[in-house]
Amino acid sequence: METFEAIYARRAVKNYDPEHQLSEEELHKLFEAAIQSPTSFNIQHWRFVLVRDPSLRQQIRAVAADQAQVTDASALVILTGDMMAWAKEPARYWRNAPKEVQDILVPWIQPFHEGKEQLQRDEVMRSCGMAGQTIMLAAKAMGYDTCPMIGFDAEAVAELIRLPKDHAIGFMIAIGKRTKDAWPKPGQHALEDVLIHDRF
Amino acid sequence: METFEAIYARRAVKNYDPEHQLSEEELHKLFEAAIQSPTSFNIQHWRFVLVRDPSLRQQIRAVAADQAQVTDASALVILTGDMMAWAKEPARYWRNAPKEVQDILVPWIQPFHEGKEQLQRDEVMRSCGMAGQTIMLAAKAMGYDTCPMIGFDAEAVAELIRLPKDHAIGFMIAIGKRTKDAWPKPGQHALEDVLIHDRF
Repeated sequence: METFEAIYARRAVKNYDPEHQLSEEELHKLFEAAIQSPTSFNIQHWRFVLVRDPSLRQQIRAVAADQAQVTDASALVILTGDMMAWAKEPARYWRNAPKEVQDILVPWIQPFHEGKEQLQRDEVMRSCGMAGQTIMLAAKAMGYDTCPMIGFDAEAVAELIRLPKDHAIGFMIAIGKRTKDAWPKPGQHALEDVLIHDRF
Repeated sequence: METFEAIYARRAVKNYDPEHQLSEEELHKLFEAAIQSPTSFNIQHWRFVLVRDPSLRQQIRAVAADQAQVTDASALVILTGDMMAWAKEPARYWRNAPKEVQDILVPWIQPFHEGKEQLQRDEVMRSCGMAGQTIMLAAKAMGYDTCPMIGFDAEAVAELIRLPKDHAIGFMIAIGKRTKDAWPKPGQHALEDVLIHDRF
């Protein structure tokens, strides 16, 4: 599917065929695409939790306002990120780069992040956003629909998936075969309402 | 360009032709694609600052580690978001939806966000991430390259673009015609390093 077609066809779909499964090959294709997404300093700090255990899906649904797509979609992905990835052997993120590039970038990673807790969290949210949009567009191009979700109890989900303390949850995405179309776009801003020229 | 091709071909490119301009039509196409990106509760809180004033570009470069793409790329976009968009007449985000949908969703917007300052900021970072990836893939499909950037003094940039106090900066993207290819991928994680099954 053409890129602009995927961008325009992607909608948040709530109703999925609970019998449909994504094959291992399809999941592999989707996540290999996801990890092509950019991260600052190439730290690749996203950790994608693919939830297929049906009882775990039920438990997550119970803390996600009972939204049906949590259990009915073919896959549920919880996008999380390691807020401390910058401190964990950062040289490996540049191990194949020319030495002069490594020598510039690697020593910059620690001072850029250290002691800046808001930045560390912002980075997870930004990177999960970028990777999540990649997943949603790739799924659309593969003939599937998606639903990005933040309407859940993040602390309860963190406990259910045993999220490490130094990780944060970005959001979740349900992926599957839709049984109902999305409703028409409900109240879109015109481009001039959100595009600012040079300064506010 | 096919969606997966755009996903794989997108790389952070640092060197741009300073003579190249994006046409009004191209910019329109790019930002119309950007606003197809999802936001929670459809609040569409992104505010895209398109910087074309050359002297402003110079001032931003001075607080962005003198990175050449800030002035040399054809366009510089600062992705910002209104952290208080949820409180500003939220009914308008659902004005064209069926009344029964409006009645469910609109009353949920305020209690979901109110008093949760971290969530309000997270939302801006997530939404800027998703819209930013849309911009980068759309630009790639149009034959351009991009560079996502967080290496700048966000407070200084906020002042230069007169960012309202209740807005936050997500990140910046330089867009243009590359003069040098990106370096080869510098040290990629294998998929199994970042994909978790069910639980950590």
